[in-house]
Amino acid sequence: MSDRERLYLYDTTLRDGQQTQGVQFSVPEKQRIAAALDALGVDYIEGGWPGANPTDSDFFAAAPQTRATFTAFGMTKRAGRSAANDEVLAEVLNAGTPAVCLVGKTHDFHVTRALGITLEENLANIAASVSHCAGAGREALFDAEHFFDGYRADRDYALACLHAALEAGARWIVLCDTNGGTLPREIGQVVEEVIAAGIPGDRLGIHTHDDTGNAVAGTLAAVDAGVRQIQGTLNGLGERCGNANLTTLIPTLLLKSAYAGRFDIGVSAEALAGLTQVSRMLDDILNRVPMRSAPYVGASAFAHKAGLHASAIAKDATTYEHIAPEAVGNARIVPMSNQAGQSNLRARLAGMGIAVEKGDPALSRILDEVKAREAEGYSYDTAQASFELMARAQLGQLPRFFEVERYRVTVERRQGSAGRMATFSEAVVVVRVGADRMLSVSENLDESGSDRGPVNALARALAKDLGPFQANIDDMALVDFKVRITQGGTEAQTRVVIDSEDSRGHRWSTVGLSPNIVDASFEALLDAITWKLVHDGAVPHG
Amino acid sequence: MSDRERLYLYDTTLRDGQQTQGVQFSVPEKQRIAAALDALGVDYIEGGWPGANPTDSDFFAAAPQTRATFTAFGMTKRAGRSAANDEVLAEVLNAGTPAVCLVGKTHDFHVTRALGITLEENLANIAASVSHCAGAGREALFDAEHFFDGYRADRDYALACLHAALEAGARWIVLCDTNGGTLPREIGQVVEEVIAAGIPGDRLGIHTHDDTGNAVAGTLAAVDAGVRQIQGTLNGLGERCGNANLTTLIPTLLLKSAYAGRFDIGVSAEALAGLTQVSRMLDDILNRVPMRSAPYVGASAFAHKAGLHASAIAKDATTYEHIAPEAVGNARIVPMSNQAGQSNLRARLAGMGIAVEKGDPALSRILDEVKAREAEGYSYDTAQASFELMARAQLGQLPRFFEVERYRVTVERRQGSAGRMATFSEAVVVVRVGADRMLSVSENLDESGSDRGPVNALARALAKDLGPFQANIDDMALVDFKVRITQGGTEAQTRVVIDSEDSRGHRWSTVGLSPNIVDASFEALLDAITWKLVHDGAVPHG
Repeated sequence: MSDRERLYLYDTTLRDGQQTQGVQFSVPEKQRIAAALDALGVDYIEGGWPGANPTDSDFFAAAPQTRATFTAFGMTKRAGRSAANDEVLAEVLNAGTPAVCLVGKTHDFHVTRALGITLEENLANIAASVSHCAGAGREALFDAEHFFDGYRADRDYALACLHAALEAGARWIVLCDTNGGTLPREIGQVVEEVIAAGIPGDRLGIHTHDDTGNAVAGTLAAVDAGVRQIQGTLNGLGERCGNANLTTLIPTLLLKSAYAGRFDIGVSAEALAGLTQVSRMLDDILNRVPMRSAPYVGASAFAHKAGLHASAIAKDATTYEHIAPEAVGNARIVPMSNQAGQSNLRARLAGMGIAVEKGDPALSRILDEVKAREAEGYSYDTAQASFELMARAQLGQLPRFFEVERYRVTVERRQGSAGRMATFSEAVVVVRVGADRMLSVSENLDESGSDRGPVNALARALAKDLGPFQANIDDMALVDFKVRITQGGTEAQTRVVIDSEDSRGHRWSTVGLSPNIVDASFEALLDAITWKLVHDGAVPHG
Repeated sequence: MSDRERLYLYDTTLRDGQQTQGVQFSVPEKQRIAAALDALGVDYIEGGWPGANPTDSDFFAAAPQTRATFTAFGMTKRAGRSAANDEVLAEVLNAGTPAVCLVGKTHDFHVTRALGITLEENLANIAASVSHCAGAGREALFDAEHFFDGYRADRDYALACLHAALEAGARWIVLCDTNGGTLPREIGQVVEEVIAAGIPGDRLGIHTHDDTGNAVAGTLAAVDAGVRQIQGTLNGLGERCGNANLTTLIPTLLLKSAYAGRFDIGVSAEALAGLTQVSRMLDDILNRVPMRSAPYVGASAFAHKAGLHASAIAKDATTYEHIAPEAVGNARIVPMSNQAGQSNLRARLAGMGIAVEKGDPALSRILDEVKAREAEGYSYDTAQASFELMARAQLGQLPRFFEVERYRVTVERRQGSAGRMATFSEAVVVVRVGADRMLSVSENLDESGSDRGPVNALARALAKDLGPFQANIDDMALVDFKVRITQGGTEAQTRVVIDSEDSRGHRWSTVGLSPNIVDASFEALLDAITWKLVHDGAVPHG
């Protein structure tokens, strides 16, 4: 039995994270993120605010099965009605989650100014709302909004709000630094005083924002002072400057001696080794460029550029690394030497079923090719399938299934038959398969008659006649398509990443690069088809 | 006379910041950054390491005139030669700067393992090097590398290194957490012990890295414990995860009560109001997309997306802002999304110079339109310019400058003149301006003869003849282009966001949506042009 204390992780990526400017998750995206959080091992997953918008309502209607406690967010009831008659609260409870987190005011100024009710009414609202949820058999959490500002303004009233929630049956009281303006030192002091005032640390949570760049430090200061629940988001998403970054906090809690010896958390060492991948998956969903300098999971987090550092690292990696990059699924980058790179590369290829002997000269050719292509603007972080094809080509293990002789695609917008403006795409592709030459043309109208654009038109024309490979192609579908302008050398390049899937449950990503978006798309499309043929074991013709 | 203590800022953007992966400043870039740092009011500007690479040597050879103390970086002399005979140290001194900062070892493991010399030799090297610089009339700083790790490993030896430097005449002893692995709480404790061991706080500096996301907090903890010099970089550039971010620390020191009342720093309130611009200038030099969520200076730092927040902000901005955005030269944003209500909308429109009476029925039409369009797949929370045009249309304040009758774009890949595969784009656009009808065609070859794709071809054809609006169009450039597949209703839509800018310093974002990527791009492009015409005050024809 461990004598370490349990520290709970509460993820709000799907709620506060959705407040990030430019972020709007779809229901399937929320489902993917919830599954990744559950596999990571967080204790609570806050799914959103049922009733606040159509997406959140739909997501809760098809709530995922999670090991973590699935939680709905809402707010304390309005004044002038009972908790049972508050329809906003009712929608939150109707989501049927095992836990409910209700935000309420604890800052006198906000009660009177933003809500326009009396201080007593607010206390009664907190107590009635929490007790209504607890009475319905839910685990109740009270999110004490603006707690630190409130405590500074009127300590007694802020504490009275916490006591009201606790006595009404809240399992957790979460101290929120909603504006993000409280510095870590003050957070620690206030938490100590709150505990001294009778709210036990193992009933307290902390919720910080990064407005002074201290969200992580404020969270740690609160833990040092006694709170036992941490709220945060993956990659630090969240309103304004974001929330406390769980992607940063989790490795610190598991790997740094100040915490590793004192606490148990739900994330295993195995799950931690997948953290970099979880972080990249989220960026991928959001079509964001991953932040290279992110602590632990950033591509540069273990990049040793200074000459002094790189040479010392070659003697002993611990000279310039505070943790081992593998612990978080990341990798060391030493620009001067590809020695470290080769063993990583072999492991990566082995993971794809490609065995390469140590010291094979192809390894260094592949690393050089990656370096050269990434300098042009390619990115293989997510486009694993294109990486695999490139490696196979260097290893002489890539068959030539077919060759594209030429293509032409036209997009035209003009008056359609009904007299309304309409858009039409048409593609012509000429392909050689062995000795055969095939000319295919495709209009790109889907079942509903609407045009799906030039890339789909090209995909259709290409898929129309690939001779012996027709069955393989018919089994694949283009499911996502992401485009970025990137700077390669001196000129802007368009980078296209295509996600494909097939009926066998494969999902693979390929990349294309060109100043011309259609060309870049076509390259990614060809890679997608080639990967499918390789993995179906198709036999080249001719 | 102020009874506040003086806190000194030491910027290392040009040295440690240059260790950022992907960053390589040119001499003119270093000059621009040095001038900006000087105008901002930092106390020391570390220009680089004379002799370490050609750029740094050239930069010091044409050293800028600064009010700040211009500083050269180097390292303590090697063992087995005198300070006067160490050519690496000689190059540093030959740069002729008023101050010299020398890095040296303080961690026993590094002395014996990385340098391979005895602990005594290292102490002698520190003393001799510092005294050589001080003797040459320079202000000497000693950068105690790996100090916190060294202190943990062998407290007495680490302290002996500091004393050796101090006694040899160092003005400052800078405690470096070189690996970035020390947490703020420990930094504070160690600094207190160092001061207790006889190194005065007003001779101590702090240099942290962001490997645990705590570089800013570690710096503040050191200041709380007594150090009086802060080292950091603009935008947190630096080796691996970066250095302590001065762009974050400066506003905290000037605006947050824990520091504003206790310290004087060299940055004035006027200079602080230019901070956002300094941060953007650096990103501009590096051709990086500015980080929206950056504390204080990020575009989202004062963006209030949550409905609850936005409505309270409309009543009183201090409800959800810990500082006024204007203090750092930033601005409030209330993004439009389906979470927003009428009061935000009026505030947002007022910010665009569009006054609408409370209760105007257009407000509810605009909100309905936002909701309907976001359900289709549009997103207005970044595409503010398209939002503005949509609102103007609902308010009857959007002139019709021109109309597109039809377009056609063709992309063809085939054997080019040199026998290699090449891609060609061609666009035809027919536009009506008033009574005039204009037919334009464009091939899309740039200066270097390479094809830039269908969107650029369309933009060129469109820009070729817009009659009376030609000068407006000639002044704008497409600077970024982002594409997402999104699920609108039941079918996949392509959402394109285009960023444009003009010579008047405007930068605006527009959105287009269609199942066809070319069509979506064209819609965003038309919005971009229309927004430019509105803001140039162009007068419609006909």
